[in-house]
Amino acid sequence: MPSISHKGQAMPESPIRKLVPYAEAAKKNGTKVYHLNIGQPDIKTPQVALDAVKNNTIEVLSYARSEGSEEYREKLAAYYQKNNIHVGSNDIIATTGGSEALLFTIGSITDPGDEIIIPEPFYANYNGFSTASGVKVVPVISSIDDNFALPKIEDFEKLITSKTKAILICNPGNPTGYLYSKEEIEKLKQIVLKHDLFLIADEVYREFAYDGNTHHSVMSEEGLEQNAIMIDSVSKRYSMCGARIGCIVSKNQNFINTAIKFAQARLSPPTYALLASEAALDTPQSYFDDVIEEYVERRNTLISELQKIEGVKVANPKGAFYCIAELPVDDTDAFAQWLLEKFNDNNETVMVAPAGGFYSTAGEGKNQVRIAYVLNKKDLTRCVEILKNALNQYNS
Amino acid sequence: MPSISHKGQAMPESPIRKLVPYAEAAKKNGTKVYHLNIGQPDIKTPQVALDAVKNNTIEVLSYARSEGSEEYREKLAAYYQKNNIHVGSNDIIATTGGSEALLFTIGSITDPGDEIIIPEPFYANYNGFSTASGVKVVPVISSIDDNFALPKIEDFEKLITSKTKAILICNPGNPTGYLYSKEEIEKLKQIVLKHDLFLIADEVYREFAYDGNTHHSVMSEEGLEQNAIMIDSVSKRYSMCGARIGCIVSKNQNFINTAIKFAQARLSPPTYALLASEAALDTPQSYFDDVIEEYVERRNTLISELQKIEGVKVANPKGAFYCIAELPVDDTDAFAQWLLEKFNDNNETVMVAPAGGFYSTAGEGKNQVRIAYVLNKKDLTRCVEILKNALNQYNS
Ligand SMILES: Cc1ncc(COP(=O)(O)O)c(C=O)c1O
Ligand SMILES: Cc1ncc(COP(=O)(O)O)c(C=O)c1O
Repeated sequence: MPSISHKGQAMPESPIRKLVPYAEAAKKNGTKVYHLNIGQPDIKTPQVALDAVKNNTIEVLSYARSEGSEEYREKLAAYYQKNNIHVGSNDIIATTGGSEALLFTIGSITDPGDEIIIPEPFYANYNGFSTASGVKVVPVISSIDDNFALPKIEDFEKLITSKTKAILICNPGNPTGYLYSKEEIEKLKQIVLKHDLFLIADEVYREFAYDGNTHHSVMSEEGLEQNAIMIDSVSKRYSMCGARIGCIVSKNQNFINTAIKFAQARLSPPTYALLASEAALDTPQSYFDDVIEEYVERRNTLISELQKIEGVKVANPKGAFYCIAELPVDDTDAFAQWLLEKFNDNNETVMVAPAGGFYSTAGEGKNQVRIAYVLNKKDLTRCVEILKNALNQYNS
Repeated sequence: MPSISHKGQAMPESPIRKLVPYAEAAKKNGTKVYHLNIGQPDIKTPQVALDAVKNNTIEVLSYARSEGSEEYREKLAAYYQKNNIHVGSNDIIATTGGSEALLFTIGSITDPGDEIIIPEPFYANYNGFSTASGVKVVPVISSIDDNFALPKIEDFEKLITSKTKAILICNPGNPTGYLYSKEEIEKLKQIVLKHDLFLIADEVYREFAYDGNTHHSVMSEEGLEQNAIMIDSVSKRYSMCGARIGCIVSKNQNFINTAIKFAQARLSPPTYALLASEAALDTPQSYFDDVIEEYVERRNTLISELQKIEGVKVANPKGAFYCIAELPVDDTDAFAQWLLEKFNDNNETVMVAPAGGFYSTAGEGKNQVRIAYVLNKKDLTRCVEILKNALNQYNS
């Protein structure tokens, strides 16, 4: 029998996937499962975007331009301009989700054996994209006790080798909810300039910054033009994860010209989704105001309820819609499975993501879970109640 | 300045792309350009597919399942069953185009440095996907004088090394239009079984088989279950290239489980496109009958007109909608550019794809072009007339 590649064998499984059969079994047994495990918001997609697709007049559903149409990229550039990110259409490549933007970026700047430094805990699929490209993720630990702030500069510098090609940050962070300050971005700038590295910033949650905090994009840093690469997506901004449109943004034309070759090989981003994404740029500000207000209330509810549970420690997220909570259990893999397999509270239970999958240092995050506050306040309150009862029962 | 990867530098440019600026300039100068250079049909997408999207009731555009919904894969499996391909939903992964299916397949079965043998001329982007995975394409030449039939078995065996992981064929072929016979598939079966290789068959043009010829899928070959991988797509079948839905099909569960990990990392295929693709499975047979009839007439027109030009040699395609033509010029790269830059016939010209980009053996195909018969007969006739006048002028 022909054999699978080493790379294929090394590809990580989604940290959530192994729990899916247990969730399905629980549902079959009549238990309601609240999904706090995935970043799939329940927020309505903007009507302008939905309408653009419903009212389309396409007769021949043709390939789009590999990098996205000139019109779309110009409109997107105008959106960024308003957000203090001064780029033009030629600095943008439309991709099939932020996912593909990450894949093309890693492919363009690394060869097998190269290294990328990433503060952990980090978005689990960075592992997948790196493995697919034969690249080694070098983690630098950020701590729940610091609210997951940027690790010390010395910690980064200790890890830089001749193989290091980039530092990758997620801002605001999934799974931490951490929002980097301008000072932190500037510290990273010093390192990447000194060591000639790329600074990749995954900013797909850019709009989700709370409590009056401003988001600082790597694209707004003067002097960083040749080093900064921004990853973006419509998935979270417009609650249209299923569209599959993202983009790569950089002023480094050498990099952009390389990434375009990857885009050409796969021909085109999805045409209907481009329609929706272009229309979504006309979403009124009131939509975002409402959404941000909703997320802030959800976060406040979630965090204050969680803090009432004895033995739970939780970092206060300033952005995105996730938080990392430390639970009074040894092994959240086992606990999350137990929640689905063995437990129910009035025929209801919750599904959370064990945080181990967000670390690449073995053993880290064993007592943490990631909770996505993608449900309404009433449900969230109920979820924390379920979690509290579950912890009581589990620990007795 | 941080540097681009070797891989990024090695990524091939699309063989057509470098002509695009000349085509745009010609259009700006008021010249009408007929596009024979790309596989973007002018055929209408089935109404059921278009309607499914227009009438959608989505309010939150969510991620789809990474491998596509159970319903879609079951309906697709039923479609294959009707086509003598006996697979179930678990043998199928929905992908973002056949393009992504190729990328996941190569990633699942090869490591950097491994080799894939491909009869050339071949679909140019096989080079891109291979380069992106650090894999070496090992070409085996098929000849226009043989109508691009399967090269001799000895030619394959000579090329097999310990690094060889698969043989990749395109059936029916782009750019050749060649349709492999059952005997040819069986010859390949002997080789891959003997050497424990995968046999990847890109069958995205499966429905386009002409003159009463039947398409023989690698999935219908008994004994090949663990070796055969089929690449498919809705792009050409339903003239919906912009949907971006394809799939991987294989009975090898080890392989499927590996490819699913790549699919999970990128989260989801595009949701609107899945709606369209599921609905497209209800396309009435009459649609295909009409489309096939149209393509056969186009092919007949194109081939017979081309054969009237002195010095032109053309392989007769039995499937897909491309043909390779040998022209009485030294260098079709220069000629194709000249057609756009220097020539017009009554303010009209044609854009063709120089065939060099479909070969990986340097120098092969220099006097060939690929012509896609994706225009109506009247336009095709006019195109050949333009080509004839152009050749006269070019060679005088
Ligand atoms: C941090 C981060 N980056 C990228 C992505 C990829 O999103 P998409 O491919 O839907 O744009 C996600 C999705 O959850 C994410 O959380
Ligand atoms: C032979 C072949 N395979 C695969 C593809 C990829 O098509 P898609 O990604 O649109 O499914 C094409 C497109 O032209 C093709 O010609």
